[in-house]
Amino acid sequence: MVSQNKLIEIADIQAAAKCLDGIAHRTPVLTSTTVNQITNSEVFFKCENFQRTGSFKFRGAYNALSQVSEPQKQKGVLTFSSGNHAQGIALAGNLLNIPTTIVMPENAPIVKQTATRGYGAEVILYNQKQISREELAQKLADEKGLTIIPPFDHPHIIAGQGTTALELIQEVGELDLLLVCCGGGGLISGCAIATKSLLPNCRVIGVEPAAADDATRSFKSKTLQFVNNPDTIADGARTASLGKITFPLVLEYVDDMVTVSEEAIIRTMFFIWERLKIVVEPTGVLAATALLEGVVKVPGARVGVIISGGNVDLMEVGKLFSSI
Amino acid sequence: MVSQNKLIEIADIQAAAKCLDGIAHRTPVLTSTTVNQITNSEVFFKCENFQRTGSFKFRGAYNALSQVSEPQKQKGVLTFSSGNHAQGIALAGNLLNIPTTIVMPENAPIVKQTATRGYGAEVILYNQKQISREELAQKLADEKGLTIIPPFDHPHIIAGQGTTALELIQEVGELDLLLVCCGGGGLISGCAIATKSLLPNCRVIGVEPAAADDATRSFKSKTLQFVNNPDTIADGARTASLGKITFPLVLEYVDDMVTVSEEAIIRTMFFIWERLKIVVEPTGVLAATALLEGVVKVPGARVGVIISGGNVDLMEVGKLFSSI
Repeated sequence: MVSQNKLIEIADIQAAAKCLDGIAHRTPVLTSTTVNQITNSEVFFKCENFQRTGSFKFRGAYNALSQVSEPQKQKGVLTFSSGNHAQGIALAGNLLNIPTTIVMPENAPIVKQTATRGYGAEVILYNQKQISREELAQKLADEKGLTIIPPFDHPHIIAGQGTTALELIQEVGELDLLLVCCGGGGLISGCAIATKSLLPNCRVIGVEPAAADDATRSFKSKTLQFVNNPDTIADGARTASLGKITFPLVLEYVDDMVTVSEEAIIRTMFFIWERLKIVVEPTGVLAATALLEGVVKVPGARVGVIISGGNVDLMEVGKLFSSI
Repeated sequence: MVSQNKLIEIADIQAAAKCLDGIAHRTPVLTSTTVNQITNSEVFFKCENFQRTGSFKFRGAYNALSQVSEPQKQKGVLTFSSGNHAQGIALAGNLLNIPTTIVMPENAPIVKQTATRGYGAEVILYNQKQISREELAQKLADEKGLTIIPPFDHPHIIAGQGTTALELIQEVGELDLLLVCCGGGGLISGCAIATKSLLPNCRVIGVEPAAADDATRSFKSKTLQFVNNPDTIADGARTASLGKITFPLVLEYVDDMVTVSEEAIIRTMFFIWERLKIVVEPTGVLAATALLEGVVKVPGARVGVIISGGNVDLMEVGKLFSSI
C-alpha cells in the first residue's frame, strides 16, 4: 500500500485540539465495575454522546470550518448528511459565523431536519431516486460558490475526530487496546493516528455491523469494497465505503477490523443504557459491542472504547428494546 | 421549632465522605450550554444516576452499615424498601460482608426483586393489605435479632446522603442555589446541612411532585403532614411523610419547598435524556424540573441540581415519552 506521506500527523491532531479548546466539550471518561468484571479487563469509555450536538462529528466539523479561507467563509459551506455530521457542521457554522447549507434526502427524519435548522443551517431536501447527493452538492456548490466539507474524507475532519483519542489517552494514560466504530473511517483514522503516535504498542481495532462490513472486507482484502444501502440499525455505519483518504489510513494505522450482529448491537445498547445510565445511539455502541459480546477478548488489558454518539429517537426506544 | 441540637453536623458528613472514599463513585458533574441558555443561569448537575446501584441511596446505606456493631454485623441487617434503598443496602451488605434482608411488597417489580437478590440480599415479600412493612420488619428483626436500617430517618443515612452536596461543592465551589428532590427527606437534610455549613449564603430548595406534596405542606405549616399512596410517577417521592429526624432538619436547614406537575416531570425527563444524554428516573429529575419549567427562576445565579438516580424500566420509556 502506498503510504499517505504523512498526510495527517499527530501534530495536526494536536493543532485541532488547540482549535477546539474551550469550544468542544472535553467529554467524560466513564468506567464501570460491572463491565470490568464481565470483560475481565479495565475499560475506559470515552463518551462522545456528551459532545456538543450529541456526537464526535462536531470536532471534525469545527476544525474544518475554522480553516476555510476568509472569502470561502463569506460565501459559506455545504455538506451532504442526514445525520450527525449535518448537526456538527450546522453548529460549527453558527459559532464561526459561516453560512451552512446541508443537503439531506427528503425522507430524513423530521427531528434531524429540525435540529439541523435549529442550529441555523439551510436544509435542502432531495429525492434520492432522482439525483445523487454528491451530484446535487457539486451543482449547488458550483452555482453558489460554496465550499464542500465532506463527512469524513477530508484531512481537517480526520484530524478533528482524532482529538477524541488524544483526549482519552491524555486522561487515562497507557492503553493496550482501543476499540473504535467505523463508518466512513474518519473517526477511526484520526484516532488510530493519535494512538499509534502516543502509544505505539496499543492495538487499534475497528468495529462494523456485520450487515455493513465493507471496511472489514476492504481491510482484509486490501482492495476497496462497498455496500449498498445496508440494513443495519447503526445508521452511522451505513456509508457505502471508506474514502480515498481514509482507506489507506485504515490500512496503515489500524490493526484489525471485526463485525458484530444487529442483535448484539441492540443487546449492548440496552446494557449500556441500563448499567452505565447513558443514552447512546446504535452506532455509538459498536465498539462496546465487540468487547461486551466477546468478539474481542483481552483479559487483563486496559481497553479504551469510543462511544461515538447519542442521537437516537427516544420514542422508538421502547419498541427497539422489547425486540430483544 | 426545637433545634436538633446538632444531631448531624458537617463533621459527620465529612466522616461519611471518608468512609465512602474509594467505595462509592465520586459522580460526575455535568453542564449544558443549552440548559444555561434556557434558564439564564449557570447550572451544575450532580449525577447520582452514575452512583453504584444507580442512585445516591448507596451512600447512606454504606455509611450506616459500616457503623453497626460487630455482633450486629454478624446477625445481619434488615430494611423495608421496594426501591433504590433496597439495592443500596444489598450492595453495601455484600461489600461489608453483612447479611441483608429486604422486606418488599409482593407486587414490587420483578426487575427490582431480581436486582436486589443479585447483590446477595434475602428478599421477603409481603401483602400490603395484610400487614404494614414497619410491623413486619419489626417482627422479623425481633425474631432474628436483625438491626433495622430505615430508608431515611437515621443519622448515618442522612450523613451519607449529605456527601452528595459535599462533593458537588468541592468540585464547583460557590453556588447561589441548590435544588434537591424530596421524598422522606434523607437526601435533602444531609445536602442542606453540608451546603449551609460550607456556603452559608447558598439557598436550598426542595422539590416534590404536586401529587405528593406532604413535605411542602409540612414545611409551610410547620406541622407534619402526610400523603396516602400518592399517584405520582416519581416513585422515590411516594413516602407518606418526612421522618421524626428529617422533618426538623428540613425546617431548620431548607429555605423553601416547591412542587411540580406530573406532565412537567415527564417533559423534563425527556429533555434531560435527549439533551444531556443521560438515563434518569422520574424522581431523579424533580430538582431539574423546578428549574427548567420556571417554577424556580434565578437569572444569573450559579445553581446546583441533584440528579438523584437513574433506575427506570427502559421497556416502559417509549410509552411514557409518547404521552407528552
